[in-house]
Amino acid sequence: MDNRLQILFARRSIRRYTGEPVSEVEIHSLLEAGMAAPSGSNQKPWHFVVVTDRATLRALADAHPYGKMLANAALAIAVCGDPGISDWWLQDCSAATENILIAAAGLGLGGVWISSHGRPEREQAFRDVLGIPETIGVLSMLSIGHPGEEKKARTQFDAARVHRNRW
Amino acid sequence: MDNRLQILFARRSIRRYTGEPVSEVEIHSLLEAGMAAPSGSNQKPWHFVVVTDRATLRALADAHPYGKMLANAALAIAVCGDPGISDWWLQDCSAATENILIAAAGLGLGGVWISSHGRPEREQAFRDVLGIPETIGVLSMLSIGHPGEEKKARTQFDAARVHRNRW
Repeated sequence: MDNRLQILFARRSIRRYTGEPVSEVEIHSLLEAGMAAPSGSNQKPWHFVVVTDRATLRALADAHPYGKMLANAALAIAVCGDPGISDWWLQDCSAATENILIAAAGLGLGGVWISSHGRPEREQAFRDVLGIPETIGVLSMLSIGHPGEEKKARTQFDAARVHRNRW
Repeated sequence: MDNRLQILFARRSIRRYTGEPVSEVEIHSLLEAGMAAPSGSNQKPWHFVVVTDRATLRALADAHPYGKMLANAALAIAVCGDPGISDWWLQDCSAATENILIAAAGLGLGGVWISSHGRPEREQAFRDVLGIPETIGVLSMLSIGHPGEEKKARTQFDAARVHRNRW
């Protein structure tokens, strides 16, 4: 592992949190990171719904079969995309999601990617809780907080998935 | 911009290269970064085709309407996904693609994301050049090299895209 890339390998899925709040400065940094992602023709088709209200976090937890950790998260960020702006929104919002998770690791926070787009009933449940328009895709929900569990940095490198010059 | 996140903001789309080769150690680091991405249920549905052969790079450049920079890149990486492993492959491979681009920035290299999946004729043209099976999706092609152009780190932060607790 190259030390210059530590932030990438340190990003792990963190589902337990200490309960300590995440500061507004840190939330701003997470959003900066998300919007620093590349997008098709730089159309930036993303929207971010930042949730710190506890009752809303609990409602999000109840809205998704694998979303229980949201009830104890310091915040959630719904990464949404507008297909009317770009038909690359799914890739673009995935890159933005990954940027936010890497930024969380870089700030000493932890988070996990909860998928919604691709499972219409989960996507709709998140829309309903947050009042997101029907025309907007909800790519993912991020659950973020101060880590209440420790996971080692790792690469998952697998030579069997690498091809050279030809498949 | 928080300095701990510098690598994220330093990632810019770099389309001009010096011609200097990228070392095998660096290529390995790029692949480690790609495979360090999160994936749905950790199924890791990705494959990576690393291209350093000049004739193949030229053929890739000819295969895509916005792929001209590939002809002068030190390498290309086709980020592919197997829908038979996971129906989250598009999100997973987007995260892997973004990780590789961030890693390139972290190593002092530069790259650009060339989209293919979503435009069937572009995806098929890449498949044909690299002998990629029909059952495999080609999410993106990355063009990578030592930067021959300089771009400033930036955030693209836009407060109009941020919603709080509700859309």
